[in-house]
Amino acid sequence: MTDLTLALDAMGGDHGPHITVPATLQALRLYPFLKVILVGHQDQISPLLDGAEDDIRQRIVLIHTTEVVSMSDRPVHALRNRKQSSMRLAIELVRDGRAQACVSAGNTGALMAISKVLLKTLSGIDRPALVSCLPSVNGKPVYLLDLGANVSCCSETLFQFAVMGSVLSEAVDNNEQPKVALLNVGIEEIKGNDQVQQAGQLLQLTPQINYQGFIEGDDIYSGKVDVIVCDGFVGNITLKTSEGIAKLLVHQLKQGLTQGFFVRLMAKLIAPRINSVLNQMNPDHYNGASLIGLRGIVVKSHGSADEAAYLQAISLAVTEAQRRLPQMIEQRLESILLDINN
Amino acid sequence: MTDLTLALDAMGGDHGPHITVPATLQALRLYPFLKVILVGHQDQISPLLDGAEDDIRQRIVLIHTTEVVSMSDRPVHALRNRKQSSMRLAIELVRDGRAQACVSAGNTGALMAISKVLLKTLSGIDRPALVSCLPSVNGKPVYLLDLGANVSCCSETLFQFAVMGSVLSEAVDNNEQPKVALLNVGIEEIKGNDQVQQAGQLLQLTPQINYQGFIEGDDIYSGKVDVIVCDGFVGNITLKTSEGIAKLLVHQLKQGLTQGFFVRLMAKLIAPRINSVLNQMNPDHYNGASLIGLRGIVVKSHGSADEAAYLQAISLAVTEAQRRLPQMIEQRLESILLDINN
Repeated sequence: MTDLTLALDAMGGDHGPHITVPATLQALRLYPFLKVILVGHQDQISPLLDGAEDDIRQRIVLIHTTEVVSMSDRPVHALRNRKQSSMRLAIELVRDGRAQACVSAGNTGALMAISKVLLKTLSGIDRPALVSCLPSVNGKPVYLLDLGANVSCCSETLFQFAVMGSVLSEAVDNNEQPKVALLNVGIEEIKGNDQVQQAGQLLQLTPQINYQGFIEGDDIYSGKVDVIVCDGFVGNITLKTSEGIAKLLVHQLKQGLTQGFFVRLMAKLIAPRINSVLNQMNPDHYNGASLIGLRGIVVKSHGSADEAAYLQAISLAVTEAQRRLPQMIEQRLESILLDINN
Repeated sequence: MTDLTLALDAMGGDHGPHITVPATLQALRLYPFLKVILVGHQDQISPLLDGAEDDIRQRIVLIHTTEVVSMSDRPVHALRNRKQSSMRLAIELVRDGRAQACVSAGNTGALMAISKVLLKTLSGIDRPALVSCLPSVNGKPVYLLDLGANVSCCSETLFQFAVMGSVLSEAVDNNEQPKVALLNVGIEEIKGNDQVQQAGQLLQLTPQINYQGFIEGDDIYSGKVDVIVCDGFVGNITLKTSEGIAKLLVHQLKQGLTQGFFVRLMAKLIAPRINSVLNQMNPDHYNGASLIGLRGIVVKSHGSADEAAYLQAISLAVTEAQRRLPQMIEQRLESILLDINN
């Protein structure tokens, strides 16, 4: 395995270095070919590296900076005024070819804005999209995009997301002719707002995409399609609602299983099994969304990610770097866009 | 208890009279003060009434019509061209004072358009909203609106929904100062699209509403607030996503609990308890959304509702009619709007 270098924004997320650094050490143990550049405040990072084995320590470079992008920074403000932030420096390392991918758990809007300006989008793509892989009833991965990088999207942007999602599913899952759908309030052609209706018309005119029409929220997790497209406002709320309902169900189950001695006893005995199932749905455990459509790899970790979850985000960056995802998307995209324009 | 008459669109929904008629018979057994007017095709309805007891049968009036609103009818088309449809005739019965409320499981857009034109909105309200009551972790009911009656909403409409939701929570749950929030992609003031940001500004200037700011999707079911406001595109997808994830969890749990003899045995023993908990989350069982902001009561049943679910929708209509909900909302709304305008 050839060496791979990741740039990690050690300061991003709700817990900063206390989560990102231990997760980094785990990743280095897991991937012997991995090197990382940790970007952030050395006073906060260094003490957390103290216990690390020598061979792990040797694969870490620390770039010190005191500036961070805060969760309340507007994207444009972060872009113009946070030029020494851990987030921006990590992205610059990717731009300059010193790292093959970066990971941040920081402000999504700022990550999107800085990545777009520094890394540029692929030709034919106006805006990057945040995409994540969701579980489904039939076990097939489902890609949902955009998850919040673009709160408003015109029909052309939704169309581009559909093309990127299709290429992603094809590239990552070796899925020939991935099924692509637009998320809408009904499956009938008359349903929805102007943006989804016009995006649907564009997709119907594009035989290179295996377009399945509209899909409703209750089919996101059914596995009926491989790629689901929506704007970032809807995608973000959809994903977070899923977390909320999973939490409610866990709560209800616990309540429902505490009534009566016999039920309580048995519930206790099978609790580990129930928990392991529910953990599959917990974003603090499965984690990592990618900004796709850029000329470099940027992985966004959930802000509240725990150590295991941040490790998952690092693993996602490793996989994407190994597969050279942006190059794969660009290649496939070029041929589709060429077909469309002819 | 004074007599109450409901007008029921017997033809609406995926299953039509096969669900609506048996549910109606159940409702009549449950509520001795209830009378119903069933609107629909008599050849399909009459055979289903054959087995009913005499005293039940006497409380049913059948209005025959062959026309129905289909799920693919555009709202404007339904409004102009389905003048003898079961849906429209049921709403006309409310308009004409022959029924105190109506229930339909048909096309939401058409139901909204016809109701708005026939029943008119309350003064100060431009558009009715579809609202439903959701469960929450702390057991408190949470009202989410709009659920799909208005796919696009300006900030003023979102503001009116917030006022109506607040009044509803106050009226139905005797909730003084209900907590109201706007659904958004982040809790920071800079987050979201223009509509939610401007609606937030309007609400901040309205001390009559206990406005809590933005809320994210993962807090919908947390019980943090009593009323959550969004446009119908987001609300519909949010609600349906919740159904989808609940189905996925049931599936995963069943899978996870079939591995190993001991686990399988215990899972079987506590399965009824798990099922009863999960059924609370199943929209085919808890059911019924109301169109509020109108001068009459219109309850929308889930299209795929089963008998028990359609009975719930009928029960919701009974409750709202007993409390004279539109009059309550109008009264409270008037005083709030008066305060605001002064």
